[in-house]
Amino acid sequence: MSLSLLTDLYQLTMAYGYWRNGMHTHQSVFHWFYRKNPFNNPYVIACGLAEVVDYLQKFSFNAEELAYLSSLTGNNGQPLFDNGFIDYLSTLRFTGSIHAVEEGTLVFPQEPLLRVEADLIQAQIIETALLNMLNFSSLIATKAARVCKAAAGDKVLEFGLRRAQGVNGALAASRAAYIGGVDATSNVLAGKLYDIPVKGTHAHAWVMSFDTELDSFEAYAEAMPNNCTFLVDTYDTIEGVRNAVKVATDLRAKGYEMQGIRLDSGDLVALSKAARKILDESGFHNADIVASDDLNEDKIAQLKSNGAAISVWGVGTQLVTGYNQPALGGVYKLAAIRPDESSEWAYKIKLSENPIKVSTQGILQVRRFFMTNEAPFADMIFSETIPEVSNEIASFDGRQVVAATREYEDLLKPIFVKGELVYKLPATSAIREKTLAQINLFAATDFSLYPVGLEKQTNAQKLALIQKYR
Amino acid sequence: MSLSLLTDLYQLTMAYGYWRNGMHTHQSVFHWFYRKNPFNNPYVIACGLAEVVDYLQKFSFNAEELAYLSSLTGNNGQPLFDNGFIDYLSTLRFTGSIHAVEEGTLVFPQEPLLRVEADLIQAQIIETALLNMLNFSSLIATKAARVCKAAAGDKVLEFGLRRAQGVNGALAASRAAYIGGVDATSNVLAGKLYDIPVKGTHAHAWVMSFDTELDSFEAYAEAMPNNCTFLVDTYDTIEGVRNAVKVATDLRAKGYEMQGIRLDSGDLVALSKAARKILDESGFHNADIVASDDLNEDKIAQLKSNGAAISVWGVGTQLVTGYNQPALGGVYKLAAIRPDESSEWAYKIKLSENPIKVSTQGILQVRRFFMTNEAPFADMIFSETIPEVSNEIASFDGRQVVAATREYEDLLKPIFVKGELVYKLPATSAIREKTLAQINLFAATDFSLYPVGLEKQTNAQKLALIQKYR
Repeated sequence: MSLSLLTDLYQLTMAYGYWRNGMHTHQSVFHWFYRKNPFNNPYVIACGLAEVVDYLQKFSFNAEELAYLSSLTGNNGQPLFDNGFIDYLSTLRFTGSIHAVEEGTLVFPQEPLLRVEADLIQAQIIETALLNMLNFSSLIATKAARVCKAAAGDKVLEFGLRRAQGVNGALAASRAAYIGGVDATSNVLAGKLYDIPVKGTHAHAWVMSFDTELDSFEAYAEAMPNNCTFLVDTYDTIEGVRNAVKVATDLRAKGYEMQGIRLDSGDLVALSKAARKILDESGFHNADIVASDDLNEDKIAQLKSNGAAISVWGVGTQLVTGYNQPALGGVYKLAAIRPDESSEWAYKIKLSENPIKVSTQGILQVRRFFMTNEAPFADMIFSETIPEVSNEIASFDGRQVVAATREYEDLLKPIFVKGELVYKLPATSAIREKTLAQINLFAATDFSLYPVGLEKQTNAQKLALIQKYR
Repeated sequence: MSLSLLTDLYQLTMAYGYWRNGMHTHQSVFHWFYRKNPFNNPYVIACGLAEVVDYLQKFSFNAEELAYLSSLTGNNGQPLFDNGFIDYLSTLRFTGSIHAVEEGTLVFPQEPLLRVEADLIQAQIIETALLNMLNFSSLIATKAARVCKAAAGDKVLEFGLRRAQGVNGALAASRAAYIGGVDATSNVLAGKLYDIPVKGTHAHAWVMSFDTELDSFEAYAEAMPNNCTFLVDTYDTIEGVRNAVKVATDLRAKGYEMQGIRLDSGDLVALSKAARKILDESGFHNADIVASDDLNEDKIAQLKSNGAAISVWGVGTQLVTGYNQPALGGVYKLAAIRPDESSEWAYKIKLSENPIKVSTQGILQVRRFFMTNEAPFADMIFSETIPEVSNEIASFDGRQVVAATREYEDLLKPIFVKGELVYKLPATSAIREKTLAQINLFAATDFSLYPVGLEKQTNAQKLALIQKYR
């Protein structure tokens, strides 16, 4: 399905306005950023760039889409768009430049995470799709990182498809959850599309389709001896574990090993301990105990602190919907504009009564400074239009910080240059590795003290702009 | 994109198990239902059937999908599925029967809303996609009905695309929100795909792209005089309203009428009252005041009770994500099974320690009884396998209710019969009309007293099954 119409109508009515006013090819700079960490997490894991790349590469309006736009009317019943504009749209492709933080990067509020430099009309039309893709994937990657942190090294499986928000809500969530650190998904299509490990064995309906639970386990083991995790709570959980052990013993005699059992209801602490005891006493020390039952990071932490003998966590709804905060409020703001390459940039900010909601002008980059032990020291947002960028940071918490270190990395990498993709998208598993490395890199960081702010001159320029507009 | 792999892996491993055990063509009956109303709403608006119909019509595994399944391995590194099964899957189509409540129907917890009668293997594989599609759309249609109720006749616009959960999360949400009662969407692709009215004018970036706000309004009005709703809060809201009035006066002189203004921040009560005063004093009595700013049904109700002069409500994130409950916990349970048509049905229930979580056996239908004034009287769930269905209802709240009325409607309608689509999908606007009519039908109903329960004999059969399994 073409996604070129995946935009708010106002992007197209503005596009028309820019075109009619001869401003459509004005050069513009927009940044995507978010203002507040979700879930009270101290950071976000950036995610969603791959989907954006695919969207921008395919961006063009086909005849059917143009015919639809021609059919739209205003409040006098006349068309919204004239034919000249429709003709113009038929030739439109994305020819701008994109810089973005790589997927799997650990990032903070206010930091520009994706920068668009493009003709104003292009930058405007693509806004909504970019926000849709980036906000949601980053939300779920972050949620997954939280869940994995709570699981503290145990495996985590993502089971959310049936309660996810739509087909693509599920697919994007499965990918983002994997990037955020989970080990596998139940979602077969996501597994195929993104090369994510897929996991699953059987449901209650399997057990109910047989006369007895033991019959059902035996039949399953007969059919698929190399993928046996028995769901034991259809009738009586402890009896279910005993039935699993019976079948596992037969399996072992045939050269196969049961993977484990799954608990999906009841007192998971008591049941997992009792199950572990039965499994161990029967010689199945390596059998996993998988738990699922509307789990989230808080429940996992609590179950672990209560001594649950669970080794694999199946997490669904709460993960793939970001249940307790189902949207990341990322925004996309104009930061500079000029009629053409030979003109001066006019810097732009969006004012707000709330100082933290005032956007930042310029062509922004994020510089992450490191200490000699390679631990991050501070993040500095600066405009690349500043002639001599300093290492003095006006931190958002009010501190002035000097990054007296030579080691740094500029986080925004070139993705598109004048419409050409210049970035090689990593494999999904490599992005997941990056996430894990980033979390490890910040392992000793006290996030409440980590400085994030504007470069001194960028900050001064912003304060002057605020003065000017007020 | 083919969605045949949009399923949990365990559906396919079970499918394999059924096939290996010669049970794949056993006849099975499954029902989709939910157990608890979302948002403390007294009902759900059923939605999502159209997507299910499309999915089932296209259901078949292509060569690429089969190759992927062939590549999956178990814990010994050997393939999960043998070639015979892959060959079998290549021929698989949906050949079962589906009954479902029509989209836009007002429904209650425990009621079967979609019934699948199909070969066990088919009924199992399609489960996850059906749940994904039905749960989410029904959640959002219900949320929209709540938002529209709070708006009390004012227009409601859905603006959620940028914060929705993925591309299809946005598209499905736009459709469901419209079905639930909103008047239009900002999502152009949803407008095209589902024939939903689309609305939108301009954003802050438009205003920021000009030297002054007045310049920006004038340029917009020049370009698109028949679609002018000016966003007035980029710099100073009251000044913005005055600028809008200036431009609207010029527009009127040219034979066009400003639609209105939009407020997106600040004290919406005070600002809307002040804006209304300025608009009225300038002769723009019909100009809309559109408000948006992270609105939901509670904020709308509060703004209205505080006297806000808002006539159109733009609702985004909170609507399209079902923010305060982003998932409907709908489930899909086996209710009957038999080896073939000549055999007796074996009735099935899923036990739970919580009585309300015990599923119901049979081939279920929902009968809605009406009083002579056409108001609904009670809903009765019964199995079509009961020889003489009574009108005695064991209501879930413990009451025994006799529906001594001849007027009733069976809510589950035939959609597929043995793989053939027999239902004509209504236009999206007709489904929306049905929702509004259903809400109107129940306008005088005290939902806390409305009886919903099992037909007497169906209930007795269920109690006997519970006895048997315990």
